[in-house]
Amino acid sequence: MKPALIIVDMLKDTFNKHPDAFITKEALKFVPTINRLSAMFRDKGLPVIFSCDSFLQGDFIFQGKMKPHSIRGTDGATVIDELERETSDIVSQKRRFSAFFKTDLDQTLRTFGCDTVTVVGIATHICVLTTVLDAVALDFKAILLKDCCAAHKPEYHTGTIQIYKSSPIYPLIRIMSSADFIDEYFNL
Amino acid sequence: MKPALIIVDMLKDTFNKHPDAFITKEALKFVPTINRLSAMFRDKGLPVIFSCDSFLQGDFIFQGKMKPHSIRGTDGATVIDELERETSDIVSQKRRFSAFFKTDLDQTLRTFGCDTVTVVGIATHICVLTTVLDAVALDFKAILLKDCCAAHKPEYHTGTIQIYKSSPIYPLIRIMSSADFIDEYFNL
Amino acid sequence: MKPALIIVDMLKDTFNKHPDAFITKEALKFVPTINRLSAMFRDKGLPVIFSCDSFLQGDFIFQGKMKPHSIRGTDGATVIDELERETSDIVSQKRRFSAFFKTDLDQTLRTFGCDTVTVVGIATHICVLTTVLDAVALDFKAILLKDCCAAHKPEYHTGTIQIYKSSPIYPLIRIMSSADFIDEYFNL
Amino acid sequence: MKPALIIVDMLKDTFNKHPDAFITKEALKFVPTINRLSAMFRDKGLPVIFSCDSFLQGDFIFQGKMKPHSIRGTDGATVIDELERETSDIVSQKRRFSAFFKTDLDQTLRTFGCDTVTVVGIATHICVLTTVLDAVALDFKAILLKDCCAAHKPEYHTGTIQIYKSSPIYPLIRIMSSADFIDEYFNL
Repeated sequence: MKPALIIVDMLKDTFNKHPDAFITKEALKFVPTINRLSAMFRDKGLPVIFSCDSFLQGDFIFQGKMKPHSIRGTDGATVIDELERETSDIVSQKRRFSAFFKTDLDQTLRTFGCDTVTVVGIATHICVLTTVLDAVALDFKAILLKDCCAAHKPEYHTGTIQIYKSSPIYPLIRIMSSADFIDEYFNL
Repeated sequence: MKPALIIVDMLKDTFNKHPDAFITKEALKFVPTINRLSAMFRDKGLPVIFSCDSFLQGDFIFQGKMKPHSIRGTDGATVIDELERETSDIVSQKRRFSAFFKTDLDQTLRTFGCDTVTVVGIATHICVLTTVLDAVALDFKAILLKDCCAAHKPEYHTGTIQIYKSSPIYPLIRIMSSADFIDEYFNL
Repeated sequence: MKPALIIVDMLKDTFNKHPDAFITKEALKFVPTINRLSAMFRDKGLPVIFSCDSFLQGDFIFQGKMKPHSIRGTDGATVIDELERETSDIVSQKRRFSAFFKTDLDQTLRTFGCDTVTVVGIATHICVLTTVLDAVALDFKAILLKDCCAAHKPEYHTGTIQIYKSSPIYPLIRIMSSADFIDEYFNL
Repeated sequence: MKPALIIVDMLKDTFNKHPDAFITKEALKFVPTINRLSAMFRDKGLPVIFSCDSFLQGDFIFQGKMKPHSIRGTDGATVIDELERETSDIVSQKRRFSAFFKTDLDQTLRTFGCDTVTVVGIATHICVLTTVLDAVALDFKAILLKDCCAAHKPEYHTGTIQIYKSSPIYPLIRIMSSADFIDEYFNL
C-alpha cells in the first residue's frame, strides 16, 4: 500500500466566515491530527494533497440555498493557516464536490505510484464521501478517517459512517480512526 | 424543467441470482411505479435511460467483498424483464457506480435539452446517490424518488434519505415521493 | 511492452454507403492486414478493440457539413463483415473522434495491463490521430500503423504521417509500417 | 456566436529557454495580434483564457525525447510578460496537450454562456489542434487563427492548416486569419 493524504476543503471561507458553525468547530478539533498525519506522510515521501473548492461566481451550484463562496482566485478559497503546509505539498483546485471531478488528480496519484488515498476534511457526506467513492471508481483504495471529518450536523457525519463502514466494496473502502490508520500503516 | 428518467442497475444478475435478498424484494415492489413513470416520460417525449452496470471480470472493484457480476456482454448485465422497454429508450452502460462516470450521458442529456434527472433504482446509497451527486456536479438538477430506490439494508436507504433531504445544495437536489413528483411535474 | 490493437471506425455506414469514396477503397486494401494483426494479438492474449462511432441523430457534430451516420443502435454503426471478429474482442462505442473521449477505454486498458496501443482504421487525421494523442495524454505509448490507416484525401493521410513521425513526444508516439511492427513485436 | 479566446502555451519556459528556436521567433511575431485580440474580447466582456502546460517532473510524457519543462509551480510554467494580462482573465492549468484534458474548461465555458472558442498559441499541430478538436467534441464551435499559431517546423504548421481547413466538420471547425475573424465578429 502506498497512500496519499487528501485534505478536502479546509478553506478560509468556511472557517473564517462561519466560526460558530457546528462544522467549523468540529473541524478545528481535528486540525492537530491532520497536521500530525501530514508530517508523517511527508516523512515517508508520500504526497500530501490539499483539494480545494475553487468555484466561479456564476456556478450552477449557487442556484440553490448555498451562497457563493470559495471563489477561484480569492483568499477565501485557500487553505486555513492552522494547517501546516510544505512546498512539496500539492494544491489541487476542484470545481465541484469530489477531488477527482474534472481534475488530473487520478493521473497525479498514478505518477507518484500511489494506490490508496486517505481522505480527511469536510463535509463528510458531500466532498469527503464523493472523493472516497470516486477514488474507488478510479481503481484506488480509499480510507476515510472518521475522526478527521465533520459535517453540518452531527447526524450527517455519523449517518455516513454507519452507511459506508461495511459496504459491498469493503475493504476497498475502509472507515478507520486516525489512530488505527497510523498504527497499521506507519508502525509497520 | 425538462427531466430525463434514469433507472439505475435494475439488472438480471441482482434480481435473478438473489431473489430473497432484502434489496431485491424491496426493488420489486416499486417496479410498477417505474413502469408507470417511464410511460409518462415517453408520452411527453422525455428520455427514459437505463443505466446499467457493465463490468469486466478483472475489474478492481471485485478485489473486495463484492463478487463478479453484471459482466459486460452477459445476460446478467441486462435490464430485468419486469421493466417495460421501448425502442426509443436509451441503454447506457457504466463501468462504476455513477451513471455519469466515464460515460457520455451528460452529453446525451444536453443533446436532448434536459436540465433535470429523475433517478430511481438501486442501491440508494451507492449507484443512485453518486448519480444524483454527479448530475448536480455536471449542472443538472437531480430528483431522487425515495419510494423507487432501495438498498441492501433498510437503514442504508433511510439514512441516505435523511442525510440528503435538506443538503446545502437544495433544491438542486430534491428528494421526493413519486406521487409528489408526478403531481408536480405531470399534472401541470 | 504490452499492446492492445484499436481498430477505429471500420463501420458499415462508411463502407456500404460510400463504396466508391477514396477513403473506402483505400481502407478495404488494408482489411487483410488488420485481420492478420488481430489474429496475432488474439494468439498472444492481447486485447482486440473495435472503437466505433455511435452518434445520436441530434448530435452537435452533424450541424456542419457532415451528414448523420453511424447512429447508435443502427446496423450502420457496426463493424464491417470483412473484418474478422471473435467473442473475446471488445466493442467500445464512442461519441466523438477519439476512442477515449467519454469512454472507459483507459480503464479497460489498465485492467488488462496494457501499456501501449496500436492504432489502425479511419480517418487518419481525425479519429485515428485523436486516439493516438489521447492515448499518450493518458500515459499509454501509441503506435500508428501507417499502412493500415486512410483519410478522405491522400494528402490528409500523408500529411498527418509527415507531421507526427518525429514529434517531440517520440518515441511515445511512433509511426510504423505494419511489417516493421510485426517484426519488432511478434518476432521477438 | 459567443466566443472565448483561448491562448495556448505561451509560456516562459519555451520562450526564455529557447529564444532562437524557430517556433519561438514565429510566436513572438504574433504576440501583438494576440494582445489586440484579447483587448477586443475583454471590451466585449468575453472570456480571455490562458491555457498553460503544468506538468509534474515525473510525468509520462517526459519519457520520450521531450525534456521536462513547464513544471507546475515554477515560473517557467507562467505566461510570458509580452502578453498583456488583466485580473478578469482566466488561467487554466492543463496536464497534457488539449486545454480540455482533465480540466473544467468545458464547464467554465458553459457557465459563461460561450458556444465558440477562438484558439491561438503553440504548437499548431499538438496543443492548438487538440484543443480545437476537443472543443468540437464537447459541442463548441472552434476557430483556429492561422496567423496566431506556430509549430516547431514551418511544414508542421502549414500542413496542419492544409489538412483541417476543409474537414468534414466544417464549419464547426474553421481556420481563419485574425483579420477575417475580427472583421466578421467584431465589426458587426
